[in-house]
Amino acid sequence: MERFFNPRSVAVIGASRNPSKLGHVIIQNMVTAGFKGKIYPINPNAHFILHLPCFSSVLTVPYTIETAIVCVPSALVPQVLEECGKKGIKDIIMITAGFSEIGNKELDRITLSILRKYHMRMVGPNCLGTLDTYSNFDNLFLPRSRLTRPKPGIISFICQSGAVGSATLDLLAKEGMRFAKFVSYGNALDVDESDMLEYLGNDKKTKIICLYLEGIRDGKKFMEIAKKVARKKPIIAIKGGVTAAGAKATLSHTASLAGAAGIYKAAFKQCNLIYAETLEDLFNYAKILEKAPKPKGNRVQIITNGGGFGILATDSLSNYGMQITEPSEKTKRFLKKKLPQEATINNPIDLTGSVTTEAYKHALNAVLKDRNVDAVLLIVLLQTPLITPEIIDVINEAKRKHAKKPVVVVSTGGHFTEMYMRHMEELGIPCFVYPNNAAKALKALCDYYTRR
Amino acid sequence: MERFFNPRSVAVIGASRNPSKLGHVIIQNMVTAGFKGKIYPINPNAHFILHLPCFSSVLTVPYTIETAIVCVPSALVPQVLEECGKKGIKDIIMITAGFSEIGNKELDRITLSILRKYHMRMVGPNCLGTLDTYSNFDNLFLPRSRLTRPKPGIISFICQSGAVGSATLDLLAKEGMRFAKFVSYGNALDVDESDMLEYLGNDKKTKIICLYLEGIRDGKKFMEIAKKVARKKPIIAIKGGVTAAGAKATLSHTASLAGAAGIYKAAFKQCNLIYAETLEDLFNYAKILEKAPKPKGNRVQIITNGGGFGILATDSLSNYGMQITEPSEKTKRFLKKKLPQEATINNPIDLTGSVTTEAYKHALNAVLKDRNVDAVLLIVLLQTPLITPEIIDVINEAKRKHAKKPVVVVSTGGHFTEMYMRHMEELGIPCFVYPNNAAKALKALCDYYTRR
Repeated sequence: MERFFNPRSVAVIGASRNPSKLGHVIIQNMVTAGFKGKIYPINPNAHFILHLPCFSSVLTVPYTIETAIVCVPSALVPQVLEECGKKGIKDIIMITAGFSEIGNKELDRITLSILRKYHMRMVGPNCLGTLDTYSNFDNLFLPRSRLTRPKPGIISFICQSGAVGSATLDLLAKEGMRFAKFVSYGNALDVDESDMLEYLGNDKKTKIICLYLEGIRDGKKFMEIAKKVARKKPIIAIKGGVTAAGAKATLSHTASLAGAAGIYKAAFKQCNLIYAETLEDLFNYAKILEKAPKPKGNRVQIITNGGGFGILATDSLSNYGMQITEPSEKTKRFLKKKLPQEATINNPIDLTGSVTTEAYKHALNAVLKDRNVDAVLLIVLLQTPLITPEIIDVINEAKRKHAKKPVVVVSTGGHFTEMYMRHMEELGIPCFVYPNNAAKALKALCDYYTRR
Repeated sequence: MERFFNPRSVAVIGASRNPSKLGHVIIQNMVTAGFKGKIYPINPNAHFILHLPCFSSVLTVPYTIETAIVCVPSALVPQVLEECGKKGIKDIIMITAGFSEIGNKELDRITLSILRKYHMRMVGPNCLGTLDTYSNFDNLFLPRSRLTRPKPGIISFICQSGAVGSATLDLLAKEGMRFAKFVSYGNALDVDESDMLEYLGNDKKTKIICLYLEGIRDGKKFMEIAKKVARKKPIIAIKGGVTAAGAKATLSHTASLAGAAGIYKAAFKQCNLIYAETLEDLFNYAKILEKAPKPKGNRVQIITNGGGFGILATDSLSNYGMQITEPSEKTKRFLKKKLPQEATINNPIDLTGSVTTEAYKHALNAVLKDRNVDAVLLIVLLQTPLITPEIIDVINEAKRKHAKKPVVVVSTGGHFTEMYMRHMEELGIPCFVYPNNAAKALKALCDYYTRR
């Protein structure tokens, strides 16, 4: 499986000189990304593609090939696979579509029999392929000018749908989220979600796994593996096709047999997967699990410089069943001395619009020391002029000094705010745009560690 | 009330030469924004502030003053208000805090009695003030470098909390949302949410009203006015302090008496207000009501170039009670002829990753003509390389030709996608990042017109 992400040599079968063709974009992306392995373009009609010498077939390549990326028309698939088998290639990434998702079950059957004959494994067909941000093996066929690639991180994303995977990777890369490995496995004719889950469970670069599923090929196998992996690292999963109408739509997409929402939710819970209702939730949960430590309980202290945001955060936390308890008398006494008169010392602690960085420092450190507080939801509205850039150091140092309590930041605003948020996230501080999303993520964090 | 947004002359009482003081920032903002009215800085110790001649008191200004912005320390408020009254100023924007929100009920009483004596009206105290994007009257005390101002539009926003208002304005201005008027009315000692609602109900620039409430001062008055205004234009409202913990927090914020969620929800429904659960929903609903026409029913046709996104959209729409019906046989026959073989013609219509702009054109126009379709959720993932910039014209023309059917776009991605989305939104096409948000907004749109 390692060779699906970090091969020493790769053939691109269906390589093209035409920059708008997949077989060109894939090679260009690997070259641009700085992939260190050997790349062999396969095309009987070309001599060179992007300065790389071209071969008429894998059989004419005089070197070892570990992995083949296939993007030829579906009619050529059997012949190409036979050649791969004869060449001794063991790992196939099948980008080509036109299998059972359009009713061509015969091609499924032939493909499987060739794979078995030569002991090959295959990701796909009808998939977007894989991306490894460490090895820079990038076979997503979407141009880098349209799809920003994320920087290396500790989250890996297994995504049955190529479109869901690529569009969200693009969005999240822009937002500064980092990833380790990505795979879109399409029809899952051979390698399926369970195989990938097992592999990433043992992958040292991967600490958190995100999962977009449409169907599960082998429920028993999936549950066994999921249970095992979930003991080692958090797995967050979203299921496409949880309604009757949605389930119908999955049939023509990846030919998956989707099941009822209830069955999946119960099964996920049994395996200790974290269930995400929306894509936004999926990655918000991944972010908080990546950046925040285990909380001791669900008592959240809110600190804010905007009263309204404090109230909305309180409402959201309450709705998600979190506790809004008061800080201890000792904390209150301390803060009454340190904070200006207009501040409200309770929960939320409202530092008001005239807040300084200094006031944030006192409040944050005091509540992090407080035994009545399990986690802090810190609202920092950067529009108020007395907050200085040192606010980032204040939060970062408090977080380091009290490394066992989650601090989650909410910061709503335009470009100015965005700059600060990116900086904080790079320092490992989880930031959210709206209080509701932060509250929901905190709830997911608590639930995850409570159930473990 | 007009003079709270578009006065011919304004005094800034508490004007300052110090760029970090509110009384400086406010004048600077008005000057930068290009406010056309006269500005009179009031400060007994300065001769000029930002090149404007300074006066020791409003009584020494030899010209008429329509509106006064007050940002002096709270102890000076009675004297300053007396002077305003004597000068004949009728409209006060009281930025100053330190009234009943910190227990100073005496200051409330004195203030009210001076207002009554001179027949003055007041926005505030403890508020952020107003912004009019047409007159450029901008008395928000937050610097323009930190808080981006929105461009002129048709949405107005009444916001009890200054922080909620300013932070979201900033965020939404960055996202390209446009506004007409904004007011943060703080403690609502005199002018309250009902007065503002009534005023904006008659305001010709305002077509949609967003409302963030913590408390309602006079329930009967509010309901009467809300009912009347809701007959003319959509009002979307969010209530801060809907949980017990949240309600407690509102007391120290704007001294509002918040009520239980259920009571507010029922009251809102009775007045035909649109209830938003989160800030994100509030503005997503405003966006769709601004840009989309009335749908005839709740049958939504999905068109996508990413199967997974089609499925997630189907799930979300189903969950919100929308109908996913099939296109008519005629439409199917037409599209079978026009679309490539790999496309799925059903609901969703999946144009697949190899989609061209031309295929979108056929599909979109065909379903807009179809009587089985009330609205279109159009997923356009711009990562796929065969989509050309003309996609924007295709959507825009289809929208114009079939102006009576809502078309809502979902486009998930990074910078490249963002550029296209901004462009589409400027053309009046409502765009959303995640399918779930688009589905929820479509549901709100249908509900609004069904209840009318």
